[in-house]
Amino acid sequence: MRWKTNPKVLTAQCLAEFMGTMIYVYVNVMSVGTGATGVAVASGLLYTLMILGPGQLSGGIFNPAIGLGFFIASAGQIKIITFLAFLLSELLGGLAGAALVRICLTSADYSNATMTEGVLSLNLATAGIGGGFMIESILTFCLAMAVYVTLANGDWKQHAGWGPVAVGAAVCICTLCGYDATGACMNPARALGPAVIASFYADVNIAWAYHYIYWIGPGVGAVTAAIIYRVLHFLSDQEKQEED
Amino acid sequence: MRWKTNPKVLTAQCLAEFMGTMIYVYVNVMSVGTGATGVAVASGLLYTLMILGPGQLSGGIFNPAIGLGFFIASAGQIKIITFLAFLLSELLGGLAGAALVRICLTSADYSNATMTEGVLSLNLATAGIGGGFMIESILTFCLAMAVYVTLANGDWKQHAGWGPVAVGAAVCICTLCGYDATGACMNPARALGPAVIASFYADVNIAWAYHYIYWIGPGVGAVTAAIIYRVLHFLSDQEKQEED
Amino acid sequence: MRWKTNPKVLTAQCLAEFMGTMIYVYVNVMSVGTGATGVAVASGLLYTLMILGPGQLSGGIFNPAIGLGFFIASAGQIKIITFLAFLLSELLGGLAGAALVRICLTSADYSNATMTEGVLSLNLATAGIGGGFMIESILTFCLAMAVYVTLANGDWKQHAGWGPVAVGAAVCICTLCGYDATGACMNPARALGPAVIASFYADVNIAWAYHYIYWIGPGVGAVTAAIIYRVLHFLSDQEKQEED
Amino acid sequence: MRWKTNPKVLTAQCLAEFMGTMIYVYVNVMSVGTGATGVAVASGLLYTLMILGPGQLSGGIFNPAIGLGFFIASAGQIKIITFLAFLLSELLGGLAGAALVRICLTSADYSNATMTEGVLSLNLATAGIGGGFMIESILTFCLAMAVYVTLANGDWKQHAGWGPVAVGAAVCICTLCGYDATGACMNPARALGPAVIASFYADVNIAWAYHYIYWIGPGVGAVTAAIIYRVLHFLSDQEKQEED
Repeated sequence: MRWKTNPKVLTAQCLAEFMGTMIYVYVNVMSVGTGATGVAVASGLLYTLMILGPGQLSGGIFNPAIGLGFFIASAGQIKIITFLAFLLSELLGGLAGAALVRICLTSADYSNATMTEGVLSLNLATAGIGGGFMIESILTFCLAMAVYVTLANGDWKQHAGWGPVAVGAAVCICTLCGYDATGACMNPARALGPAVIASFYADVNIAWAYHYIYWIGPGVGAVTAAIIYRVLHFLSDQEKQEED
Repeated sequence: MRWKTNPKVLTAQCLAEFMGTMIYVYVNVMSVGTGATGVAVASGLLYTLMILGPGQLSGGIFNPAIGLGFFIASAGQIKIITFLAFLLSELLGGLAGAALVRICLTSADYSNATMTEGVLSLNLATAGIGGGFMIESILTFCLAMAVYVTLANGDWKQHAGWGPVAVGAAVCICTLCGYDATGACMNPARALGPAVIASFYADVNIAWAYHYIYWIGPGVGAVTAAIIYRVLHFLSDQEKQEED
Repeated sequence: MRWKTNPKVLTAQCLAEFMGTMIYVYVNVMSVGTGATGVAVASGLLYTLMILGPGQLSGGIFNPAIGLGFFIASAGQIKIITFLAFLLSELLGGLAGAALVRICLTSADYSNATMTEGVLSLNLATAGIGGGFMIESILTFCLAMAVYVTLANGDWKQHAGWGPVAVGAAVCICTLCGYDATGACMNPARALGPAVIASFYADVNIAWAYHYIYWIGPGVGAVTAAIIYRVLHFLSDQEKQEED
Repeated sequence: MRWKTNPKVLTAQCLAEFMGTMIYVYVNVMSVGTGATGVAVASGLLYTLMILGPGQLSGGIFNPAIGLGFFIASAGQIKIITFLAFLLSELLGGLAGAALVRICLTSADYSNATMTEGVLSLNLATAGIGGGFMIESILTFCLAMAVYVTLANGDWKQHAGWGPVAVGAAVCICTLCGYDATGACMNPARALGPAVIASFYADVNIAWAYHYIYWIGPGVGAVTAAIIYRVLHFLSDQEKQEED
């Protein structure tokens, strides 16, 4: 998320966020049949490729929660119009990705099961509502921290280019940690798209059950990470000034 | 796919394409018993090694659909004789790979099951014919785009050498996405070889059922990717000229 | 583990060790449901990220057994106060990681099963007590050797930066080797935290059964590795002097 | 395999081969319980680490078949005493690795099952004797070719250091291809050690059934690869001379 509101640049960035989020949701849902390790490997590798590809234009966020964290941590440097444009692009990308899944898996039963199995069905027997919220918060906190440390301000090229790989590894790790309990969503766009599409064909109650957890959990996690990152950055800047 | 028709160079390139496709089909089929994650890891790593090995001579295509995309996108730069020689080498390579599998798995039942399980048996219960076509198109589109962006014109050495790794990662991701529904073939040579060999021993109807999907799907996906890549390239060249 | 006792530096290092060990235990326990390969991939990737992140401050140990090896091998260079501060930080980190798991998995049954399944339940049918001790010793020996060779004295940047990746790979390999028999703990902090938390809710006898193996095994392995590393280093230094 | 017979250097090289083969066999056998993907990941990563570690001294062979290929392809440059010393070190290393497994898995039944499941039990239902021989030959051919191309003459540092990673990837791919049918041994030292140890405790007929396949298959594959590599090298040298 760079700080420009030049309309041409912003359009290209929004297109990049739309594309990246669409492909991420498509891959994350389509690989559900291969189990936790398959989903984690596919999602992690894809995140790295998406940051290296369309992310060169937009910073590689693909996640409204992490975008919100960026917006708050920037303390006014990111204009609200940029934030909202990114948010909308990511939510529409998630919707497009889920629609692609629906077109590919023509069996309504299977397609809906696939879309809801991964994320939308909180495993009440293991985590419960409070646990699900905690898991989504903690995992998104870790992922967001990895993003802020390595990709913030687009300066990951200074880290010998390993930033996108580190973020992909974080996606893989977090997916393995949370897959059984909550599906390791960590991304409201990942939750909204499949829920909307599934509610056309499946039981609406199932499609939207506990949906709010996938907004509040990631949101709280990413914003907390952004604030802590900002404070640490501020303290370290202050220390440098004192040394001078 | 370099643009040479020097007979000696072309022969070496065709040999490289034959070898690469043969080993790819052999690995893709032989690893079926290890499940989706095993096939995806083996195929992805192999694609990277094959691009780094024989691909140094030929550009590392190993796929008639992606070759067709290159041919169309080159707008005449690639002669039709080069395209046809690559196509033939890849199809023969796929045939040789499937024959190697047949020699290694001496049980006819097991060998045919292995060869058809991975790719040739479209899972009608989950995807159906239309869905199968869409999946093969979308996955081949993504793979082809990764190839065109990082390997086109053999200039991947400019991208710090990460092109072959990115293409291997794309093969791994796409395999995980499509394995359950269509086998994630994305390659007519991968489909033709096992179908020919299996039809000697197994029920011909099973071996060739829905075979056309594995030609039309990847073909449409790769050609679409090639055209979009070409248009984007053209627009970006034009923009640069305007800036000068 | 750097050799400083400056209180400010030491506090930062202890905080880094606490954070790293906490996240490691959390990831190692939370991913248990994905099976041996999932745990191995998650733990290996995380170890690499933790060494690259908080490990920049503290050396990236996160393991009392490997810390003890460092202390003995340093032959007085590391002060005992540093060693004890690291030890305490790591044990508290393991406790905090296990507490986080308990908060996330609100079902007591499931949470305790997850915490004890991975590490605390020695598989008597396959390894027995003696075998369990041997496995923990050998695996920790290998892991510690990888750490000492690539990370000792914080000079891994001389090895083209591959040290943290090599240690992560060692964690992944060792986890796959020992997962079925002992859970591949290799770390007293990994064992203590879940045992303490589980004993609040589950049968105390189950939580602490064979607990001493996860202290003695890793301890013997890491100290042996440290002594061998030290002797090899000493011999190679002596040889260089003779050559001069 | 460097071309020295200096006794001190040769002793260090043999020790490195012994250590590397011992750990390889230990890891390959101990990870059997995690399934094909687990064994493939563990073995591949370990091979890379062993080449980077002890392999810096000895060239990183750890395999009598690949050593035989090196010896024949060197056309007299490698003395027979070097070849035999390497061979003996590798076979003793395999024996020591299997003995370590036996010490760790104190249940005789489990330990023998583990040792024989991975490699020594040819799956007659899928491959048969002829197929098993072909699989071991083809996989060892591919692995040996990867070794000769990237590591021969110890000049892999010229390939930007990626040689050891490529060989590890080849081990991972070949393991996934052959695991179901023959166990993907590709290494007589891997076969001999577990067979000797298992025959102390288990039915001797089971321990040694089809054992010769794991010598002839890899031997034929590696020697064929060595000859082809040698011829290609010779032709390319001749071409360069003609160009001068």
